[in-house]
Amino acid sequence: MSATSPYGAVAAATSATQLGPVLEAGGRELARLLARTEERLAEVIGSYGETLAGYAAGTLAAGGKRLRPILVFVCGGAACDPGAEDEPLCDTPAGTALVHAGAAVELLHMATLVHDDVLDRASLRRGRPTVFSSAGRPAATATGDLLFSRAFAELVATNDVDAVRVLSSASSALARGELMQRSDAWRADVSPDRYLERCELKTARLFEAACRLGALLGRPGRSATDALGAFGARIGVAFQIFDDVLDVAGPAERTGKRRGTDLLDGTVTLPLILARRRDRDLRDLDLREVVTDPAQAEAVCDRIALTGALGEARREALHHVAQAKAALSDLELPAGPRGALDLVADGVVERYS
Amino acid sequence: MSATSPYGAVAAATSATQLGPVLEAGGRELARLLARTEERLAEVIGSYGETLAGYAAGTLAAGGKRLRPILVFVCGGAACDPGAEDEPLCDTPAGTALVHAGAAVELLHMATLVHDDVLDRASLRRGRPTVFSSAGRPAATATGDLLFSRAFAELVATNDVDAVRVLSSASSALARGELMQRSDAWRADVSPDRYLERCELKTARLFEAACRLGALLGRPGRSATDALGAFGARIGVAFQIFDDVLDVAGPAERTGKRRGTDLLDGTVTLPLILARRRDRDLRDLDLREVVTDPAQAEAVCDRIALTGALGEARREALHHVAQAKAALSDLELPAGPRGALDLVADGVVERYS
Repeated sequence: MSATSPYGAVAAATSATQLGPVLEAGGRELARLLARTEERLAEVIGSYGETLAGYAAGTLAAGGKRLRPILVFVCGGAACDPGAEDEPLCDTPAGTALVHAGAAVELLHMATLVHDDVLDRASLRRGRPTVFSSAGRPAATATGDLLFSRAFAELVATNDVDAVRVLSSASSALARGELMQRSDAWRADVSPDRYLERCELKTARLFEAACRLGALLGRPGRSATDALGAFGARIGVAFQIFDDVLDVAGPAERTGKRRGTDLLDGTVTLPLILARRRDRDLRDLDLREVVTDPAQAEAVCDRIALTGALGEARREALHHVAQAKAALSDLELPAGPRGALDLVADGVVERYS
Repeated sequence: MSATSPYGAVAAATSATQLGPVLEAGGRELARLLARTEERLAEVIGSYGETLAGYAAGTLAAGGKRLRPILVFVCGGAACDPGAEDEPLCDTPAGTALVHAGAAVELLHMATLVHDDVLDRASLRRGRPTVFSSAGRPAATATGDLLFSRAFAELVATNDVDAVRVLSSASSALARGELMQRSDAWRADVSPDRYLERCELKTARLFEAACRLGALLGRPGRSATDALGAFGARIGVAFQIFDDVLDVAGPAERTGKRRGTDLLDGTVTLPLILARRRDRDLRDLDLREVVTDPAQAEAVCDRIALTGALGEARREALHHVAQAKAALSDLELPAGPRGALDLVADGVVERYS
C-alpha cells in the first residue's frame, strides 16, 4: 500500500505503537472508516485556503496514530466478528456519523496540540515544524481556535445534540486540565489524587468522549454509552500515566523527544511524585532552581528511575487498564468487539515495551 | 437601582452607548432577560473554582454593554408591544433558551477578547486588568479555550442542534477573521473589499449568529432567521467600521484607549484605506517604519482625519445600517419589535456622536 494513501499514512504512524493488533482486528471496516476520516480531515483543513492548509498540514500529519478516532470506531462497533451479516458499517448513515465524530475528536485534539505548542514555544512536534514555529504566535493561536470551532461544526453534521453535548463537556475538561497543570507548575508536592484528577481532565475526558460518541452514533446505541464511556476514561488515565513514564524513561529514539521535557516546563507527574516518597534528596529538590537545562532534566530523570518509581507508575497504569476492562463486564458484547476493545486497552500501555 | 444588581451593571455599562433607547423600548422583559444572562454568566464562570472566577471576573465586567445578548433578545421578540397579551417571554421555555443563547454568544465574545489580549499583550481592557496581565499567557490561553467550550455547552442546553450549528459557524468565522487580520498586518494596500470581508468574519458573523439564535429560539421562529440574520450581519459590519473610525477619531476619554491602537499592531482599517486614496504621502508611508510608538500613531491618525476619510467611512457604516433595516422590510413584524430593531441599528453607529 502506498505511503501517500490515507490508510497507508495511518498504518505507518500506528505501527510505531501497539495499535497494530487493533487495526488487524478491526479489519477492512475499521480501515475504511479511518481512511474516510483522513479524507474528511484533509477536506476540512483544505477548505480555508492554502495558508491554513499549510499551517495545519504538519499538525495533521504529526497527529500520528489517530487513537481517538480509532476509539470512536471500535466502540461504534467497527471491529465486528468476521462472520457478521450486518451491512458494512462504513456504508450506513451510522458510519457517516461515526466519521464525523472521529474527525471531530481528532480536530479537538489537534487544536489543543497547536495551543500547547504556542505555550511551550515548541518548534517541532514528531519531527515536523509546529504551527507556532512556521506561522508565529498569533496565527497559531487563531489556527487552534479554528480547529476547535471546526470540531463542533463537524459534530453538528450528525444532527445529534447529545453528541455535541459530549464533545463540549470534553472540551471544557481539556481547558480546565490545562489551567490546573499551569497552576500546579513547579509544585513538586502535588498529591497523587490531584495528579490523577489532572489526567482525567487533560486526557481521559476526551478518550471518554470518543468512546461515548462511538456508542451513541454507532451500533451499540445509547444504552452502552456509560459503560463504554467509563472504559474510555480509564484507558485515558492509563495512557497519560504511561506517557508520563515514557517522558522519564525514554528511550528518546522511540519517543522522538529528549527525556525530561515535562520537568523542563515544571510539569510534575506521577514518576516524580512517587520517587519523592522514596528519595529524601529528591523531596528536598527545588525544581525551578535545579532543572534549568535539558541535561539537568535528564539527570533528574535518572534519579527518578533509580528509586523504582517507574515500575510503580506502570503498575498504576495497568490498574486503570484492568478497571477499563472491568467496566465492560456487564455489557453484552459479541466476542469480536470485546476482543478489539481489550486490544485497545492493552495497546495504550504497551507502547515501546 | 443598586450598581451591584445585574441589571444595574448592564444599565451603567450601556449608558455610555446609544443602547439606552433600546433598553427602554425593551422594557421590563428585556431587562429581566439581561439580568438572567448576567446571573448565568456569573454562575458559569463561578463554577470552576475561585481561580477562574478571579481571572474572568475582570473580563466579565469589562465586557460591558452586552450588545450581542441584546441582539438575541430583541430578535427573539423581547421588545414587544406594551399591550401584547403574550405570556412574559422570560417565564417561558423560549425565554430560558434565549438566556442560554445570550450567555453563549457573550461567552464566545469573551473568549475572543481573552485571546486577543494575549496576542496584543494587553494589560488593560476598559480599565480593568486583562486575564493575560493577571494570570499570564498560559492561563489566559486556557481560560479563553474554556470560555469557548462553555459557549457551546451553554447552547447545547437548548437541545437545538440548529442553534449549535449557528454558533459553530460563527465561531469558525471569528477565527478565520483573526487569521486574515494577522496575515494582512502592516499591508497598507489592503483593498476595501478585503477589509469588508474581514469585518464580516471578525465581527458581523457573530452579530448575525446572535440574531439568528433569537429568531430560532424566540417568538419569530425559524422562518424569520434569514431576514434577522441578514439584519445582524449588516449592523455587525457597520459596528466594526464605526469602531475603526473611533480608533482614529477618538476622543480617547470616550473610547477608553489612545487613538491609533490599530495602527500600532499593524491593523489597516477603512479610514486609512480611504485616506491613502486622497493623500499621496500617506500612500507612500511604510507603516512598519513610521508607526513605532503611540505618539507616531496619533500623528498618523491626525493625517488620516485631515483627508476627510473619517466622514467617508462613517457614510459607509450608515449605508450598512440602511441595508440592515431594508433586510427587515419583507418580514411581518409588529411595530414594537420593528422599532426596537431600528433603535439597535441606529445605536451601533451613533456612539459618541
